[in-house]
Formats: sequence, structure tokens, C-alpha cells
Amino acid sequence: MSTPVPAPVLAIDIGGTKLAAAVVEPGGRAVAYERVPTPADLDAEGLWRTLASVLDKVVAEAGAPGLGGVGVGCGGPMTWPAAEVSPLNIPGWRAFPLRERLRGRYPGLPVRVHNDAVCVAVGEHWRGAGRGRGNVLGMVVSTGVGGGLVLDGRLIDGASGNAGHIGHVVVDPEGPPCKCGGRGCLEAIARGPGLVAWAQEQGWRPGQPVTGVDLATDARRGHPVAAAAMRRAGRALGIAIASATHLCDLEVAAIGGGLSQAGALLFDPLEEALRTHARMHYARQVSVVPAALGQMSGLIGAAALVIAGDRYWNAD
Amino acid sequence: MSTPVPAPVLAIDIGGTKLAAAVVEPGGRAVAYERVPTPADLDAEGLWRTLASVLDKVVAEAGAPGLGGVGVGCGGPMTWPAAEVSPLNIPGWRAFPLRERLRGRYPGLPVRVHNDAVCVAVGEHWRGAGRGRGNVLGMVVSTGVGGGLVLDGRLIDGASGNAGHIGHVVVDPEGPPCKCGGRGCLEAIARGPGLVAWAQEQGWRPGQPVTGVDLATDARRGHPVAAAAMRRAGRALGIAIASATHLCDLEVAAIGGGLSQAGALLFDPLEEALRTHARMHYARQVSVVPAALGQMSGLIGAAALVIAGDRYWNAD
Repeated sequence: MSTPVPAPVLAIDIGGTKLAAAVVEPGGRAVAYERVPTPADLDAEGLWRTLASVLDKVVAEAGAPGLGGVGVGCGGPMTWPAAEVSPLNIPGWRAFPLRERLRGRYPGLPVRVHNDAVCVAVGEHWRGAGRGRGNVLGMVVSTGVGGGLVLDGRLIDGASGNAGHIGHVVVDPEGPPCKCGGRGCLEAIARGPGLVAWAQEQGWRPGQPVTGVDLATDARRGHPVAAAAMRRAGRALGIAIASATHLCDLEVAAIGGGLSQAGALLFDPLEEALRTHARMHYARQVSVVPAALGQMSGLIGAAALVIAGDRYWNAD
Repeated sequence: MSTPVPAPVLAIDIGGTKLAAAVVEPGGRAVAYERVPTPADLDAEGLWRTLASVLDKVVAEAGAPGLGGVGVGCGGPMTWPAAEVSPLNIPGWRAFPLRERLRGRYPGLPVRVHNDAVCVAVGEHWRGAGRGRGNVLGMVVSTGVGGGLVLDGRLIDGASGNAGHIGHVVVDPEGPPCKCGGRGCLEAIARGPGLVAWAQEQGWRPGQPVTGVDLATDARRGHPVAAAAMRRAGRALGIAIASATHLCDLEVAAIGGGLSQAGALLFDPLEEALRTHARMHYARQVSVVPAALGQMSGLIGAAALVIAGDRYWNAD
């Protein structure tokens, strides 16, 4: 628990494609923003130096204010709340002591680290599509499928800080194997590379180096296999959100990440599957919307771990 | 929020088969207990009078102590927290103002009503199989499949008091139709009458009036169809618990209700499906156990809505 911090907060978003940082005012407005591509070939210390230079730059850009704390969203897995991080897509960091290093760099300030998709959920609850609602699932649909849960107005951490993993809800017990070792998880079907692989098997641009964005573009142009792949993802998302809505009595699911920009191609089949399966009276009112803060959700949420810690931070 | 109540609490459990009540001490011990079969053919006022006589009897049996409050678990659906109840299996009560009537009968005392399966979850968290753990799913597998969620040490209500409905997590999107209007929900497969219907279609005691208990008995005796039906239920339960564990980062799932007494016939296939699908590192530690308080879970949980309201009651 903490009282709101009156000073701006340094917010950090660490993913496989970019290292981003912002200085966020207590009201939620970002007053400075910097990002660099995540270096693919640096070791742990090289990555740390790259991050540190981004942080110095964004703090200078904000006019070097007195900071109230540091909030971080980072790709998982990690220990929590100690935040020794081993992001799947950043092989240079394995059990890297991110929280400890940031504490050393910003002595005396609270430093709070959570999963990047959890920060998206927090950002959308605090200042985005879930604002004013008590029960919100935030999701990231991209290379993977991640998420975070705000229930009864508070961030849910679960036993080890891993609550919110909507990507590993089972949507088809006989479905494709998942990287987690299971089978038929939402992520196994709806992650961008999974969709691309499925479409290529069906004859869409076989053998070419393509991405989920290419797939969405071709689907929009009317390519039948590409469109079918988007329907497949939308349907899997709708089933998983129906299960989560029934289990958690959700009001809003806010979806961010690259694939969420596919619009009706994704959201129409999602809605159809959702309304087929979310049939309990209380579940019919759930709404599924794109993340309102776009690319900034994760940074705003990371800031909220500090600024609105009474709702979003339950650890030491 | 409330501070612990030092006086004993009147706990009530209202279901389609029985009306039960207990006087529960602040430490969680029941010092008096009464039950009657739920009258099948009474109107709303007749049911109320039957309940009232049970309450008078159990309070007298306890020595007519000064009560600290009234906690109730009642079959759903209901409005919450107002508790106008319309229990599926008690047709005489439709929008019956249970909380209001109890407040009139016990003026000045807190009266708190929740779903009966939610009370099982609370009871198991407070004094049962989930004691000392922060993240617990309590379940009832019987005529229906219900549940409740305790996460980060607190009961989750959700938007309308309906969080915990594990019975409507989708375990097979192409599965049998569910009474909720959806398809392939856990409850559609694993509820007692659903299992019996499936087994009868496969040739087990066709046309006879039989129950889930008969099915479990025959399965134990080695009847292949009856055993297959139990495996089918166990597998569906395992898949749903895997999804819930991934989504909510659970530590314990405690299963009560008639079918939970089938032992290894149900729990072995449950474990097999759970371990197949719950593969994220953090999910491997989840344990699934029978409810430790047996038939008393719901009453103890109902009492805890008042006695430990800081954790289990978030409404007015």
C-alpha cells in the first residue's frame, strides 16, 4: 500500500523489440518519451547500459524533475516482486537483477516491476478503456498473448505475480501444442507467428519471411486464407474471453498489441465466438475493445504501479 | 470492511435439497446445527416459515446467544448484494427478498448473503483446504458445477457478485449445449445429471431413474461406461482448473459437492488432464484436493462473510 506520489514517475517498458521510457505526471500524462530498438546482440551489461542511456535522456528531456519513483513493465518470465528478469525475447538477460540495479541507480525511490502485459492492463484500467470500471482484463496480442487482471478495483497478482496469463487459457483441448508444454492454449492459436505458420500451411505465401502484420494486410485485401487465419485467432480470443468473463465476472476486456490493430477482421469473429459462449446473464454485458492508450498503455501502467500503488501494488 | 465480530454468528445454507443452519463461534467452530429437507411444494411464504423455524431451533440449541450477525449462502441466481434470490432449484422463491426479510427478523445485525458455492470457497479458504494460502478456487460439483475465487487473500466478487463461476469456463467449444445457452461449458459435461445422461446414452442403465451417486457407485464396481463417464467429468474438471490456474495463478482448488466423493475415479483423470494442460512453470505447483470441511464448508463460509468480513465482504 502507498499513498499517491505527488512527483512525476519514471516509467519503463522493456520488450523484445524496444526499450521505452517516459516521465509520467501524477495525473497520468507523459511529459517526455524516448525509445530505442532492443539491441539483439548485447550481453547483460551492454543491455543495461543501453537502457540507462534511454533513462538519462528521458529524464533530461523532462527537465530533470525530482522523481517520485520508478515503475517498470518487463517481458516475462521473472521472479516477482524481486524482478530477476529473463525475458523470453531478450536472451542477453537471464535472471538479470533489474529491480536491484534500478534501486542502485535511483537510491531511496520506490522501484516496482511487473510483467509488461500486466502493466498494459493497469494502464487501461487507470487511464484507458477500463477507466471507472472495477473488473477489467487487459490483453496484449502480438508475438505472444499476455494479459493482466484487475478485479474488484485492484490488480490481481496471484501466488507468484503471474495472474492474468489469458494466453494459457485452454480454448481447444485437442488443439496445437503450446510452447508452455500444454496443448490448445489461446496463445498457441492466436499468437502472430502461430497464425502465420497456420496460414502458410494452408498455402498463403509459403516459405516467405512474413509477419502477423503482413497477414492482417492480406486479410484486409481479401486473401481467403489470410482472412481465415484472422477468423481463427478471433474465435480463439472470443472463447478465452468468454471463459474469463464467466470465471471473473468481467466488465471490459481491452486488447492491445500489434494484432489488435487488425480491426473488424479480428474483432468480428471474436465477438461472434464471445456471444456464442458468454451466455450467463451477467456475462452478456461484457465489452471487448481495443486498448485506448495504444502503445502507451504499458508505460502509463508502469507509472501507475507507483502513482496508484494502493490499487496496483501489493508487494514490498 | 469490518472488524472481526466477537459474538457467534448465525450461518444459513439454502439449497435445493436442504435448508441448513448453524451457530458459528468467531473462531470458526459450529456449536449448533440443524437441517430440514427443502420443501418441494411450498410457496414463498411457506418456505420462509420453514426456514424461520430452523433458525429459531438452531439458535435455541446454541443457548440463545447474543448474535453478531447473519451470514447466508444461497443457490443462485440472485441480485447481489441486495440478495433478491431466485434459486434454480427452489421454484417457490423468485426474486424473494431474502436479505431484507432477514434484516427484518434480526434488526440491527449485519446480514450478508452470497452464492452458496462462493460460501464454500470462503469456508475452505478460511478454515479448510485453502487455509493459509492466498489464491484458492473453491468448487461444488454436484447437480451443477459452481465455485468461488479467493485471490490475493480476498474474496473476488466481480462486477455483479458472480465471480467464481468455474462451471461456465469453456472446456470444449464443440461440446454439448449448456443450460446457460452456451456450448461446451464445464458444467454441461461434469454436472451429475449431464454425466448420467451421457452414460445412459452409452448404454448404462438406460431408462432407469438414477443419479450421479449411482453412477459413481457403478464406476467403483468396474462398470466400464460408468467409469468412462467419471473419466469424462474428471478430464473436463482438469482442463477447466488448468485454465483457471493459468489465468489466476492459483495455489489450491478445493472441490466439494456430491461428485467430489467419488475419489480416485474422478481425481485421477482430473489430475492427468490438469498436468497435461497446466504447464506454465508457476502452474505446476497447484494442488487439487477435496473440500476439507465437507458438508460444513458452505455454513462456515457463510459465517465468515460476517466474522472475517475484511477479507470476504466488499459490499454495503
